[in-house]
Amino acid sequence: MPFICQPGEVRADASPGALHRLKATPATVHWGYFDAGLAPVLRVKSGDLIEAEAVTHHAGDAPDLMMDEGVSAIFSGVPEADRNPGVHIMTGPIYVEDARPGDMLEVRYLKMTPRLAYGSNLAANWGYLYKEFGERERVTIYALDQSANQAEALYAYDFPGKYLVPGTVTHCPECDRQPALKGVRVPARPHLGTAGVAMDVKGRVSTIPPGAHGGNIDNWRIGAGAVMFYPVQVAGGLFSIGDPHVSQGDGEISGTAIEASLNVLFQIVLRRDFSFPGPLLETPKWWIVHGFDEDLNLATRNAALDMLGLLTDHIGLSRNDAYSLMSVAADFAITQVVDGRQGAHVRIPRSLFPPQAGDG
Amino acid sequence: MPFICQPGEVRADASPGALHRLKATPATVHWGYFDAGLAPVLRVKSGDLIEAEAVTHHAGDAPDLMMDEGVSAIFSGVPEADRNPGVHIMTGPIYVEDARPGDMLEVRYLKMTPRLAYGSNLAANWGYLYKEFGERERVTIYALDQSANQAEALYAYDFPGKYLVPGTVTHCPECDRQPALKGVRVPARPHLGTAGVAMDVKGRVSTIPPGAHGGNIDNWRIGAGAVMFYPVQVAGGLFSIGDPHVSQGDGEISGTAIEASLNVLFQIVLRRDFSFPGPLLETPKWWIVHGFDEDLNLATRNAALDMLGLLTDHIGLSRNDAYSLMSVAADFAITQVVDGRQGAHVRIPRSLFPPQAGDG
Repeated sequence: MPFICQPGEVRADASPGALHRLKATPATVHWGYFDAGLAPVLRVKSGDLIEAEAVTHHAGDAPDLMMDEGVSAIFSGVPEADRNPGVHIMTGPIYVEDARPGDMLEVRYLKMTPRLAYGSNLAANWGYLYKEFGERERVTIYALDQSANQAEALYAYDFPGKYLVPGTVTHCPECDRQPALKGVRVPARPHLGTAGVAMDVKGRVSTIPPGAHGGNIDNWRIGAGAVMFYPVQVAGGLFSIGDPHVSQGDGEISGTAIEASLNVLFQIVLRRDFSFPGPLLETPKWWIVHGFDEDLNLATRNAALDMLGLLTDHIGLSRNDAYSLMSVAADFAITQVVDGRQGAHVRIPRSLFPPQAGDG
Repeated sequence: MPFICQPGEVRADASPGALHRLKATPATVHWGYFDAGLAPVLRVKSGDLIEAEAVTHHAGDAPDLMMDEGVSAIFSGVPEADRNPGVHIMTGPIYVEDARPGDMLEVRYLKMTPRLAYGSNLAANWGYLYKEFGERERVTIYALDQSANQAEALYAYDFPGKYLVPGTVTHCPECDRQPALKGVRVPARPHLGTAGVAMDVKGRVSTIPPGAHGGNIDNWRIGAGAVMFYPVQVAGGLFSIGDPHVSQGDGEISGTAIEASLNVLFQIVLRRDFSFPGPLLETPKWWIVHGFDEDLNLATRNAALDMLGLLTDHIGLSRNDAYSLMSVAADFAITQVVDGRQGAHVRIPRSLFPPQAGDG
């Protein structure tokens, strides 16, 4: 089986096993953290399909539009004091039989469907231009047009006070709804902002900083049709998904995307035939590596070095060839510009490389 | 006339005037600098078409393949001592009648055609991973396949010593030609790495750092079909083009692209109906603003603020709407990661906005 397939190729072991359904409930979510000590809510075998609910922690920005009974149950069932040290509602963890540290989890995202027809963008206190906007926060509610694969702003309001508690319910029916972005239609890019495996650390680890385990990468290309590779850190992997987005731009500069609950169909395949030091993304067009740091300069350097590793260790190019090719064909981009937590990524087109002998 | 047209729209004043041909010769190029004191080599009226030769300063990396009589004449006709303080061979300057400081030059790039079928990529001493590569420089020569719009490596060689003199002729026929990037075909993205107007400064200004005048932006989207807007700094604008590339990735991490001479057809239109503080790029799909700084964090911030300005001052969004829209639909990217001179850009899709009343 090739490390990464050419577009259109089918992996040898791709035939799905069982299909599991995983609802998001107070009992199947963990809010704000990964924790290697959490009991799994689902056990799957390599190859199994999972249809899981990912619930946005921003549903409280427009509870009348973004909450149904199941979402409300999570908001009322998970006390505010239990939502930390991060902010994202994570569904899981999923235990993958036989997965052990050093393996890779290949997660094939097959389908991402909005659960409700609305999403929220918060211009947050952790946003890139918070100071330039007078340290005021603001919510813009978007309506989703699934048939057109677009979103359109419905109304906006100034957030009262400071958004500090994850899942704050702002009772916006009482707020001053202002028109916003009249006539502008935003292309939908449904994806998971946060997904990954538990880290080999005792206790809770915040969902906010991304890392080798995946986590809060916020790359909008992690949508249907994409394949993510996560390095397993603990037995079973303990994979969770959350932070569903209907759209964001590279950078996500206000601090949030169009946050909206998604139902996600994916397949998990256990891989022992290769390893990679960080979260690696394959889309129909690209291979993508990520770098993270407080300093965008260093995040970019980390991503550059990981791309060099991908091209040499896995594609088989010489270091010299890889460097030249990166300069003429790899695109560097900014995944996240939220202050204090920068993300960069590097994309190289899969079409550059002819299928290898023995592939397919 | 709209500030920026919708895709497919025709600007009211787009009918071309005269067609001028501008060959690159020792008398019509300036090597390594902009200079407001330079005598124009061509005078044009707003609306005129210009077909100009842009010659790569890397032709000496493979003189047998990348030099013809005209290119050789420039390399032998411009003494090494006259190539400074930057590195790029610039064709021009072109004086645009009636252009004055505060105006904008709208330059519509219509066609970019390789002059010869070869280009060079140098892993340079100013490249991003120079230290990681043992402080050694290396040239990879690419053959261009115009019918397929692709490039393929032909051979590579270690550069002897350090590449310090712009236009060094390495007499590669005598060097050790090594195979490179077998079977890899790079998509061609012909564009100008450097183009812009003279700055209002006495004496020579290096072509290397980009700025409000344009200059060495190195965005591969500045190709055929793109429109650049440059703020005029001195009477006549004194526009020059150079640094032709057949392809580069965002980042241009080895320090150079596939450098190859191009013949460029473009139209210059004088604009007085708007102003913008930096070099602004319109492609069929995107509006793009640029930020530059030694620190990528600051380059990114500059680009973010310019995009905010574009969306508010020119598209007419409120600041709040613009910020939300940037977060959910604008893509931040890295134009240049060469050490000591970082470039970022932000793209927003033109399709987001309905045509304005009175447009077209």
